[in-house]
Amino acid sequence: MKKTVSDSRTTLSQVMQVNMANPAGNIHGGEIMKIMDTAAGAAAKRHARSNVVTARVTEMEFLVPVHVGDLVICTAELAFVGHSSMEVLVTVEVENPLIEAPPKVALTGYFTMVAIDENGKSKKVPELVVETPEEKKRYEEREKIYWERKKKLAEAKKRRT
Amino acid sequence: MKKTVSDSRTTLSQVMQVNMANPAGNIHGGEIMKIMDTAAGAAAKRHARSNVVTARVTEMEFLVPVHVGDLVICTAELAFVGHSSMEVLVTVEVENPLIEAPPKVALTGYFTMVAIDENGKSKKVPELVVETPEEKKRYEEREKIYWERKKKLAEAKKRRT
Amino acid sequence: MKKTVSDSRTTLSQVMQVNMANPAGNIHGGEIMKIMDTAAGAAAKRHARSNVVTARVTEMEFLVPVHVGDLVICTAELAFVGHSSMEVLVTVEVENPLIEAPPKVALTGYFTMVAIDENGKSKKVPELVVETPEEKKRYEEREKIYWERKKKLAEAKKRRT
Amino acid sequence: MKKTVSDSRTTLSQVMQVNMANPAGNIHGGEIMKIMDTAAGAAAKRHARSNVVTARVTEMEFLVPVHVGDLVICTAELAFVGHSSMEVLVTVEVENPLIEAPPKVALTGYFTMVAIDENGKSKKVPELVVETPEEKKRYEEREKIYWERKKKLAEAKKRRT
Amino acid sequence: MKKTVSDSRTTLSQVMQVNMANPAGNIHGGEIMKIMDTAAGAAAKRHARSNVVTARVTEMEFLVPVHVGDLVICTAELAFVGHSSMEVLVTVEVENPLIEAPPKVALTGYFTMVAIDENGKSKKVPELVVETPEEKKRYEEREKIYWERKKKLAEAKKRRT
Amino acid sequence: MKKTVSDSRTTLSQVMQVNMANPAGNIHGGEIMKIMDTAAGAAAKRHARSNVVTARVTEMEFLVPVHVGDLVICTAELAFVGHSSMEVLVTVEVENPLIEAPPKVALTGYFTMVAIDENGKSKKVPELVVETPEEKKRYEEREKIYWERKKKLAEAKKRRT
Repeated sequence: MKKTVSDSRTTLSQVMQVNMANPAGNIHGGEIMKIMDTAAGAAAKRHARSNVVTARVTEMEFLVPVHVGDLVICTAELAFVGHSSMEVLVTVEVENPLIEAPPKVALTGYFTMVAIDENGKSKKVPELVVETPEEKKRYEEREKIYWERKKKLAEAKKRRT
Repeated sequence: MKKTVSDSRTTLSQVMQVNMANPAGNIHGGEIMKIMDTAAGAAAKRHARSNVVTARVTEMEFLVPVHVGDLVICTAELAFVGHSSMEVLVTVEVENPLIEAPPKVALTGYFTMVAIDENGKSKKVPELVVETPEEKKRYEEREKIYWERKKKLAEAKKRRT
Repeated sequence: MKKTVSDSRTTLSQVMQVNMANPAGNIHGGEIMKIMDTAAGAAAKRHARSNVVTARVTEMEFLVPVHVGDLVICTAELAFVGHSSMEVLVTVEVENPLIEAPPKVALTGYFTMVAIDENGKSKKVPELVVETPEEKKRYEEREKIYWERKKKLAEAKKRRT
Repeated sequence: MKKTVSDSRTTLSQVMQVNMANPAGNIHGGEIMKIMDTAAGAAAKRHARSNVVTARVTEMEFLVPVHVGDLVICTAELAFVGHSSMEVLVTVEVENPLIEAPPKVALTGYFTMVAIDENGKSKKVPELVVETPEEKKRYEEREKIYWERKKKLAEAKKRRT
Repeated sequence: MKKTVSDSRTTLSQVMQVNMANPAGNIHGGEIMKIMDTAAGAAAKRHARSNVVTARVTEMEFLVPVHVGDLVICTAELAFVGHSSMEVLVTVEVENPLIEAPPKVALTGYFTMVAIDENGKSKKVPELVVETPEEKKRYEEREKIYWERKKKLAEAKKRRT
Repeated sequence: MKKTVSDSRTTLSQVMQVNMANPAGNIHGGEIMKIMDTAAGAAAKRHARSNVVTARVTEMEFLVPVHVGDLVICTAELAFVGHSSMEVLVTVEVENPLIEAPPKVALTGYFTMVAIDENGKSKKVPELVVETPEEKKRYEEREKIYWERKKKLAEAKKRRT
């Protein structure tokens, strides 16, 4: 089975609450990471149509402060799939609803989600069809990283035996 | 100032948690109403660029059961504006991420939001520009209801004096 | 089986928290609606002694602002029952515990709850016995609305065939 | 100023959620204690019409298991007042809404609440008027304990100097 | 089976959130009691390696105010065990992370936890091995209280027959 | 001012709740990341004695599944400090309290926290004193990464001008 990137693209948004912030009103990085993981999980689920778990998260840089009252718009879309793993690109945009200005990108990250069946074993996922030049470029980048990782793991395994 | 419907259209989505449900796994109607109110508030805020309060909510019918694990997609868009009040149409779609099927509409409702300034007094909001036939039709429906209500209030006031 | 209105009358109360409010300290309408739905559900459960789901909610008008720190007293009582449906009147009173003044009515609404069995199918509920003039009047009002609705649904069905 | 016990009697109730329980479905004792403290605080606030803090809590015995889905009805009423302190009796009743049976008392405890002003200093509270034999008996019991405690503190202070 | 006090000593800590406090910023006593109960439960579980329920809580005195932003460090350790019951000493320390000062003890209390099996019946727990003079002293104090209580219960039973 | 690693070492622990998991009972990666960020923030605050914000998080790999009911023990300790930034190593251990087995390491990550003053501007932090060989080794690793990053940023800046 094949599914496109837009088939499972998911936007999870939330209004930032005061209990998600420090006393100065800055939303904790951990709250943002939690929303990102939830968005990544939703997109991965929609692609695989099974339960998923988070296997890995890339380095993330918090470029823009997020404040209580801000609207956080978190978009997750598949970038690449392996056998049972899915690389999901998550983009976080922030908008202050009281100011007439477009949303700003606060951070991005790649979440590697793995599809699992009812017994908790990893399960094959549908192929990913890319349609736009943007999606094509991302697919190739993540594919390269995927095979480099597999190679390193194989080499490490060989050394141990 | 004038702003279009799409300028402030907001989608607030959430994955339904087990603590939002009854023991049988059905998500409480009240949890759905809370998400709808949050979405209506976000759209109204973006249009008015000020704080808002909920003044009125139309009758709502829960057409479709919502379950733990479902993705609830809640879209809010302005339908009509009065002086300080904004009629916001909120549509709730439900999707079971584990099944290959499109989202279903679970319910819709109109939320009347009022813009307030820093002193809590109602404040004039930008004019609403409608662009599509759908938006035009909705505008006229809600405008009719708006003036009928104003007329009733004026008549009731007259009777009391 | 027959049960009175007072048999299942339920008061669910809560102290309003800061995470239920907007930055100006006004409690979100959606939080109030959620408490109302929970109260309606509790009263309906006690009457039917089974799980219930929310089927419909009447129009609601938020007459009085509710603030962080206020005590919200939410009383739910059955007004009328159909076969498996129960019309529950929910009244929300608000009290500022720091001021010597009686509670104010913030809003009221009717919640239609449906009793369901373990298989999720609607299930017959006990008859409702009204005792006071107030309860009698309410019963007749909601009974009229109930039959008008049934008539409309039957006519719509006839037109489709 | 004088106020009766019934003036500030408060019932705070809640439906027990799954996230308040252990995996076996038993509601954590700590969740019950939290509801009791909230009820004690609400009653104390209504009597003193100021902010309050919890100073002391008596020994408590959990007589009856509380389960997910149960309705917990928590009644708080003043039993005795000192200068700025208020002894609040909190009674917790539990009802399984799916079973035709009256609520059971799960536990009771006395919460000593102290009224504080805007600067955080303790502040005098209104006198407490008892009306029923039950309330009279409780007043005398707690009054005895209050003076015994004051005596012990005075003796301990004397020994240190 | 025998296990030492340190085998199951557990520290549960939390940063105090604004939604755990009253408008003046004081953390509710009930929130502290809830953290204490969770810590007691974790230590008891680790000792018994089964589910546990809270049976009793001693009197508690809140010696030190706790504020939003404070770090609350809650240590629970077994003091004595009966057949299926475990006396857990819980100590709450408070630290203001913005001030260069050591943590202060805010309160202590004993929680009696009972081990239960999968059918909800009480179950025998491992013997407790005390190692330090501090642990020995505590064991003897709680053991005395344990047997005094058993004696009172036996006498009360005799009187009823 | 100088402070050691152990001065600000912080353990934040929690019992995993059902609302933090997916329907299969696996705790969401995002919940773990949130606890890690909270622990990193607490340790950083204790070192800097000021508010902090999360600036960066390294790649993280979830080695071990975490389940509802597990005790998650999250230790955060400073590894290196720059001018206003602090590299905090966060280790997550997981223990199933119902099984007689030591905690397992679920994952580790480095959180870069920045100290900010009351105006939100970055502020100098105390020097970090390392005491054990382990701490020394970590300091040198992170220091190397710190200067490599600074070099890259300087080169990128040069290229743009």
